[in-house]
Amino acid sequence: MALSAEDDGRVRGAPLQKVAIVGCGLIGQAWAVVFLRSGFRVALFDADHAAALRACSGVVDRLKELAAHGLLNRSRIAEFAANLEVEDGLEAALEDAAYVQENGPEDLGTKSALTAELDRHASPDVPIGSSTSGIPASQYSVDVPGRHRCLVVHPINPPHLVPAVEIVPSPWTRPDVTARVSDLMEATQQTPILLDKEIDGFVVNRLQGALLSEAFRLLGQGVASAEDIDKAVSDGLGLRWSIIGPFETMHLNAPGGVAQYVQRYGPMYREMFRHDMPPEDWSAALKDGLERGLCARHPVSNLAQSQADRDSALMALLAHRLAPRNT
Amino acid sequence: MALSAEDDGRVRGAPLQKVAIVGCGLIGQAWAVVFLRSGFRVALFDADHAAALRACSGVVDRLKELAAHGLLNRSRIAEFAANLEVEDGLEAALEDAAYVQENGPEDLGTKSALTAELDRHASPDVPIGSSTSGIPASQYSVDVPGRHRCLVVHPINPPHLVPAVEIVPSPWTRPDVTARVSDLMEATQQTPILLDKEIDGFVVNRLQGALLSEAFRLLGQGVASAEDIDKAVSDGLGLRWSIIGPFETMHLNAPGGVAQYVQRYGPMYREMFRHDMPPEDWSAALKDGLERGLCARHPVSNLAQSQADRDSALMALLAHRLAPRNT
Repeated sequence: MALSAEDDGRVRGAPLQKVAIVGCGLIGQAWAVVFLRSGFRVALFDADHAAALRACSGVVDRLKELAAHGLLNRSRIAEFAANLEVEDGLEAALEDAAYVQENGPEDLGTKSALTAELDRHASPDVPIGSSTSGIPASQYSVDVPGRHRCLVVHPINPPHLVPAVEIVPSPWTRPDVTARVSDLMEATQQTPILLDKEIDGFVVNRLQGALLSEAFRLLGQGVASAEDIDKAVSDGLGLRWSIIGPFETMHLNAPGGVAQYVQRYGPMYREMFRHDMPPEDWSAALKDGLERGLCARHPVSNLAQSQADRDSALMALLAHRLAPRNT
Repeated sequence: MALSAEDDGRVRGAPLQKVAIVGCGLIGQAWAVVFLRSGFRVALFDADHAAALRACSGVVDRLKELAAHGLLNRSRIAEFAANLEVEDGLEAALEDAAYVQENGPEDLGTKSALTAELDRHASPDVPIGSSTSGIPASQYSVDVPGRHRCLVVHPINPPHLVPAVEIVPSPWTRPDVTARVSDLMEATQQTPILLDKEIDGFVVNRLQGALLSEAFRLLGQGVASAEDIDKAVSDGLGLRWSIIGPFETMHLNAPGGVAQYVQRYGPMYREMFRHDMPPEDWSAALKDGLERGLCARHPVSNLAQSQADRDSALMALLAHRLAPRNT
């Protein structure tokens, strides 16, 4: 079945396209929301069938939250829910699916075996994307006969609220497969970030890891508190970065653009990192008060509420960002 | 004169407090907006008097933009503008000022001489903050008699739209001076980020520099395009970081909080940076297409418009972030 999503997941006149979600934890549920709200049919499968059944109500809850924040029309929730099915067999879930999103455990052996099984049952040439944040497709798909259709499709948490999705083909992923998955992400209002080659951590976690390493270093050297470092981002860098990326930020911060910025500030950044220390021991920082401070702000016993608050704020922000398009 | 700002810049029953802005480029103008909208009187001084006169209309333009985005009441613009004065002498600008914000050139000799002059004319114990992004107070104030009242007060561009402000005392800055400046920033709705010691680049630019270095490395290795790296931040990390900081992000991304996050993902980040390359040559990346790509999106000839668009988006975002407080 060709993958050519239009506005509402159907080729004009054709039946709704179906997506199979394999692995129904929070990431799988969020993916289901992403596809349902764009008009796709979604089949859920989990090796633990009870988990798949529970996921169903999780998905509907997420849809209701989106409606409450004005991010989808409440009158369509019943329709979207009717497009959601739970299968107790993998073959049934994959039947007629135009795309498979796998959200299995982050374990090479498990993922390799699961991918081989998906490849046996999915229709030929249907792309098989993995949500893995740490295992490149070249590792888990190397012995899979249909490895040309396997690739990483890595979302940012929570996937139904953060549009960026990393698409990471292996050296043997067929370019048309990568292109079709990129088109599919565009069709579901996600933002495809296309990697031209595999690299540990992909792009998003490498950028995050670089900033985190420096944050841990500053904390370890007693330069500022974790709370102030967090505020430097949430009321500073992040506010700007939610509108323009890091390169664009440079470009807009010098009258002559990026070349002038690099000329003016490049030496300052080089000098700043001249001692370029090895990565901090994160565990030491934990014991040095990081965990205590964070738990004071967000107790672990109340973390679900903190996560819900974060998601509410993200949804309000998204509604705000989308508002101009509706006017 | 004691510095004890209340809601509208006046101690109950007392006259409005005055702030002196020395150096009237874009940063100085934005600082004027910050103080005016919180009800302070603002005196502008620039060694180039014509620049100070031009700054006056720049400040009023910024106030009008804020009103257009619902971030201040249009009916108060005339009142704020009436609290703005341009002085052609430094002494007049500093007379009765309760705080001095210096925005001079980023040159050690110039800044040292200017600071000494400010110290000669400002009332005793009035804090003298510098907007410098690169020169610690211990360098430019070392020979200033009143060095105990000198410190860095470094804003993020554009300062009237991004609340975070780094407060960086030198080893000899008196703690009560630092505390008063921190209170003043709170009183003007800025977010003080307090550094416990001086470090090259302070916190914000070190965090930004760490992320930028990795962005340049990914670009240099051909992993992804500059545009996709930008989108990975603006539609991914930055969206989240505009709501919660990097440490909070970790803490909320594992059911057991930050300790579990470090246990689960610490090894992945360590492995990711195991080859920890030296900083990229940024100039090489420029020639390799970075500048061309950025200029295609934001031509240098049109950069003022791109900056205005960025500011409009930032203001709309701020209006959105502030909305819940008004309900």
